[in-house]
Amino acid sequence: MFLQIEDLLSADEVQTIAGLARQARFVDGRRSNPHNTTKVNLIAEAGDAAGQQAAQLAMTALQRCEPAKNFVIPQRMALPQLCSYRVGMKYGAHTDAAFLPLGVQPLRSDVSCTIFISGAEEYAGGELLIHQGTETVRIAGKPGSAVFYPSTTVHEVTPVTSGERLVIITFIESQVPDQLQRDLLYTLREVRALEGLKMEWQNQIQLEYVIANLQRMWSR
Amino acid sequence: MFLQIEDLLSADEVQTIAGLARQARFVDGRRSNPHNTTKVNLIAEAGDAAGQQAAQLAMTALQRCEPAKNFVIPQRMALPQLCSYRVGMKYGAHTDAAFLPLGVQPLRSDVSCTIFISGAEEYAGGELLIHQGTETVRIAGKPGSAVFYPSTTVHEVTPVTSGERLVIITFIESQVPDQLQRDLLYTLREVRALEGLKMEWQNQIQLEYVIANLQRMWSR
Amino acid sequence: MFLQIEDLLSADEVQTIAGLARQARFVDGRRSNPHNTTKVNLIAEAGDAAGQQAAQLAMTALQRCEPAKNFVIPQRMALPQLCSYRVGMKYGAHTDAAFLPLGVQPLRSDVSCTIFISGAEEYAGGELLIHQGTETVRIAGKPGSAVFYPSTTVHEVTPVTSGERLVIITFIESQVPDQLQRDLLYTLREVRALEGLKMEWQNQIQLEYVIANLQRMWSR
Amino acid sequence: MFLQIEDLLSADEVQTIAGLARQARFVDGRRSNPHNTTKVNLIAEAGDAAGQQAAQLAMTALQRCEPAKNFVIPQRMALPQLCSYRVGMKYGAHTDAAFLPLGVQPLRSDVSCTIFISGAEEYAGGELLIHQGTETVRIAGKPGSAVFYPSTTVHEVTPVTSGERLVIITFIESQVPDQLQRDLLYTLREVRALEGLKMEWQNQIQLEYVIANLQRMWSR
Amino acid sequence: MFLQIEDLLSADEVQTIAGLARQARFVDGRRSNPHNTTKVNLIAEAGDAAGQQAAQLAMTALQRCEPAKNFVIPQRMALPQLCSYRVGMKYGAHTDAAFLPLGVQPLRSDVSCTIFISGAEEYAGGELLIHQGTETVRIAGKPGSAVFYPSTTVHEVTPVTSGERLVIITFIESQVPDQLQRDLLYTLREVRALEGLKMEWQNQIQLEYVIANLQRMWSR
Amino acid sequence: MFLQIEDLLSADEVQTIAGLARQARFVDGRRSNPHNTTKVNLIAEAGDAAGQQAAQLAMTALQRCEPAKNFVIPQRMALPQLCSYRVGMKYGAHTDAAFLPLGVQPLRSDVSCTIFISGAEEYAGGELLIHQGTETVRIAGKPGSAVFYPSTTVHEVTPVTSGERLVIITFIESQVPDQLQRDLLYTLREVRALEGLKMEWQNQIQLEYVIANLQRMWSR
Repeated sequence: MFLQIEDLLSADEVQTIAGLARQARFVDGRRSNPHNTTKVNLIAEAGDAAGQQAAQLAMTALQRCEPAKNFVIPQRMALPQLCSYRVGMKYGAHTDAAFLPLGVQPLRSDVSCTIFISGAEEYAGGELLIHQGTETVRIAGKPGSAVFYPSTTVHEVTPVTSGERLVIITFIESQVPDQLQRDLLYTLREVRALEGLKMEWQNQIQLEYVIANLQRMWSR
Repeated sequence: MFLQIEDLLSADEVQTIAGLARQARFVDGRRSNPHNTTKVNLIAEAGDAAGQQAAQLAMTALQRCEPAKNFVIPQRMALPQLCSYRVGMKYGAHTDAAFLPLGVQPLRSDVSCTIFISGAEEYAGGELLIHQGTETVRIAGKPGSAVFYPSTTVHEVTPVTSGERLVIITFIESQVPDQLQRDLLYTLREVRALEGLKMEWQNQIQLEYVIANLQRMWSR
Repeated sequence: MFLQIEDLLSADEVQTIAGLARQARFVDGRRSNPHNTTKVNLIAEAGDAAGQQAAQLAMTALQRCEPAKNFVIPQRMALPQLCSYRVGMKYGAHTDAAFLPLGVQPLRSDVSCTIFISGAEEYAGGELLIHQGTETVRIAGKPGSAVFYPSTTVHEVTPVTSGERLVIITFIESQVPDQLQRDLLYTLREVRALEGLKMEWQNQIQLEYVIANLQRMWSR
Repeated sequence: MFLQIEDLLSADEVQTIAGLARQARFVDGRRSNPHNTTKVNLIAEAGDAAGQQAAQLAMTALQRCEPAKNFVIPQRMALPQLCSYRVGMKYGAHTDAAFLPLGVQPLRSDVSCTIFISGAEEYAGGELLIHQGTETVRIAGKPGSAVFYPSTTVHEVTPVTSGERLVIITFIESQVPDQLQRDLLYTLREVRALEGLKMEWQNQIQLEYVIANLQRMWSR
Repeated sequence: MFLQIEDLLSADEVQTIAGLARQARFVDGRRSNPHNTTKVNLIAEAGDAAGQQAAQLAMTALQRCEPAKNFVIPQRMALPQLCSYRVGMKYGAHTDAAFLPLGVQPLRSDVSCTIFISGAEEYAGGELLIHQGTETVRIAGKPGSAVFYPSTTVHEVTPVTSGERLVIITFIESQVPDQLQRDLLYTLREVRALEGLKMEWQNQIQLEYVIANLQRMWSR
Repeated sequence: MFLQIEDLLSADEVQTIAGLARQARFVDGRRSNPHNTTKVNLIAEAGDAAGQQAAQLAMTALQRCEPAKNFVIPQRMALPQLCSYRVGMKYGAHTDAAFLPLGVQPLRSDVSCTIFISGAEEYAGGELLIHQGTETVRIAGKPGSAVFYPSTTVHEVTPVTSGERLVIITFIESQVPDQLQRDLLYTLREVRALEGLKMEWQNQIQLEYVIANLQRMWSR
């Protein structure tokens, strides 16, 4: 399942991050995935102050976004990462790592997130393609928007043919790792949010009973 | 979870079955469970015509009862069995067999059912006790009523101290064997039945999406 | 996951089925789903000879198609159904039923299949949309092609604005009901088919060991 | 499954806690569950010293109680909470939250616990009802006793019609979250405790083998 | 887990089968597994009368053997197959197929069985090796004995260096497909058989409660 | 599944540990398992400096050993323990505890490890037997070697009849607790390591997709 959030970042925040990206020192993106020879992009260097500030802005935005939290049911989140795709750069078909180092316990990546900083008029190519067998979902978001999608898929970023594609990416461990279970729980809570107050009190309680038990059963 | 149905059988059907019980030939109930030395009751003999007719009436009543079907989500049902508990008879604490012979493939007993033929004024004692650790649920139904309860519990029938307790029992394999999962699915469908028509069409579809997928996921 | 098969039916078979559709007697499609008020289409009447002949041709084509069988891992298949969408007809957002009546044991619908009979030049509108949260996969196949997709999704057919959209649909119970598990098994077998013969014999056996055990573990 | 422990607290401890309750500052109980409009009770204010002392006494009592630990297989426990139900107060039907905030990682509530401070002669009404479909388990414990029951159920406290019902409640995350699995493991360990020493050594080892593997398999 | 049964067949039955093997028409064993180029043995031809009679004797012996049934918890069994390994023959490392054709529904092979017809003095080599990572279990049974082992393993038959190794093999679908779960259930029933009668009646019932529920939970 | 590593420790490390064992203070091994009356061995006292130094050497060796890490997929490891079996000592059949105390959260023992310090010429008897129903795997490793085996089995150490058997043991919690799942994941990664570079890039990605998703699905 996919969630696109139009305005995860305000226009001001997008401007600020774009400015930080101009100051940040970038290094070869393969540092975080040396085995994928089709990965050709740039990432902000680990200790770089501008990169860290951009990451922090993204982190804050993600933590305040209720629709995203309802959808992802987050448990832990990796440090966001500022990435730049310049002309000719791309990230060939790959699957996100199941586990990433984070503190004492590795983080299981259940949901992947891309936050778009550059706008459509700033670059060509650089589409995010998510492969689902013989069909493909194509995503090119507006500046400040974010897309959340399962880390389980094979996906890629097509070559940038002009301009620069700036994004921030991160990976989230969900309380409910299974994608279908997470979506069923999300959907049931949306139904409650939209219809619950119209229901007889007793039926609200029954719906609550189902939701609480699914959450217990499916969390890990 | 428990379901009591007040009027599974009509008053006429109860009368007919009580009459058939007077004609039926009964044998020692331990035939169906020789290892339980605390089982002291009578069951209608396998080939007995009156017993079979009573079983058939019960079977028909169970198959027409929509609330019971919603609760049990039945897949297969064992042949109902006419049982008599006379003075001093009882069925000590036991758990129902996990599998019963039925045709070429054994039937997994997920839900147990007792249909009450005798009324409260016709006997004393003979209560159905369902143990749940240090708490006990006690059930003595009216003539024509039925109770459905998980086959997973330890339960018993206390000694009859006067009169005769006539019941029909059966065992049902459910499409959803896990008790909690079965109850969550039942509850969600009840919410849909009671509240669905008030909902926005799109939310009805979302609720349907959850129900259909839980049913797929949990059926065996 | 999706699988599109370009030529499930030959051009001749498409012609034959289109001809049968001209002779078939169609009835209101809501017969098979009376509760969905957004379903407005026509289905060939149950006993209609031309409809049955078309269904039989589709069934035969599905049973001979190795790529589809590898993808679906079929256990049982519902009788295919000839459907017609004329101007103004559509099938609003819905989820396919979890179970369909079929012989003595209901069929669990795990994979849905649409076989396209009409070509793009014969109608406008009538797209199959498969919703995945805020993203949508849109499918309009060529005559004779088929698409297989999980029965678990919310999907719809948009209104036909001109011409007639003829399709055959069916529902398949898979040996591996979980969508992700089914796709992992399919993918591993594809890797074996494409790379197995290049491997050291011992590594082939190891891969076989994994595949056989996943199939055991995940079948239901 | 239910466990009632007669004397979780000594008579002295009950007296002490009752005394602390007279000094404690109570606030509206809805603070911990603002959405349940049927919750009408009082809870000791978060930072209140007397309330904290009562909570600490309860915590200590729970941690020393071997039968409770065998039954619950505790992993983490929420801070106990002193509650008062005065005349007219109640807690309508509800289900306990699946997760509660506790330190850095939310606590999953698997088992709920009520410790009774007031005695039967001190109030009327105020029964704990645990609903199981059409049957209900009713509990009104003696001072110092505790009842443990699955957090998964719909339950309620009926209105107090005279006097004051003082209780301490808490919520426990179990190593074995599934209720039936937890009870099977508990039961098997009880059989070992009661019968193990009479067994042949080799059979003791075999029983141990089963218990250790169930615990591994079912812990989360 | 492994079970060796010393005397599945009587000495007379072994003699009879050895005699039938002398009359049977054998064909290349790769017929049942054409892809395994390391399979070099002979199997009795499908319709051969002597081969069928031998298979029938083995089937009868398996169906009467209570210890084997307790261990395997059989649901369905493939037709046994008479096999001959002559000098130089072998069956290289392989894993048994997850599913075999059998009637309308494929049989899942959970447990494999080898029945030894030839004795140790009749051939050299021809050991059954079951690989478990860097360790190997080696089995060469006496005439009339049988070994049951999980179909999940990689195993092989080493080359016969003199004489003839005659065996009958078959594959069994278990009610409890997971190997560890099947062994835990088996072990608990053995404990009940060996120690149950010494237990307090109430503890017997508790043990029964665990066994019945594990069987329900783990059957497929 | 078993893994034997020939040279976990260098000859120098073996010498050092043997020397430390001569200085260490040993106590009755039953301290760590008082209920097993068949446990008759010695363990280095908890606070003993020489014992701790030996444990640290073993810990370091385990943490640097890539093949062991691939096989075990470790999450946490118990402090290694130096053990001595002198003449007449043994450890009767037992199963390793499911959970061991370790810091704030108990460690689930999924994989057991024995590191051999004494050589075959230094003692007689003292074999590690791992029971698998009617078959037994027998292990007596060379100095410096280690064996990893599932903690789920019943196993024993036979009586030492001459000399002294020095070993270091430890218990490991795996990211993938189920033995078969862990082995399937290990096997698939070995296939990737041995064959991956020969594969078409796209097939490598497909294999990666399967591995990453199995790891997500099976980790706990």
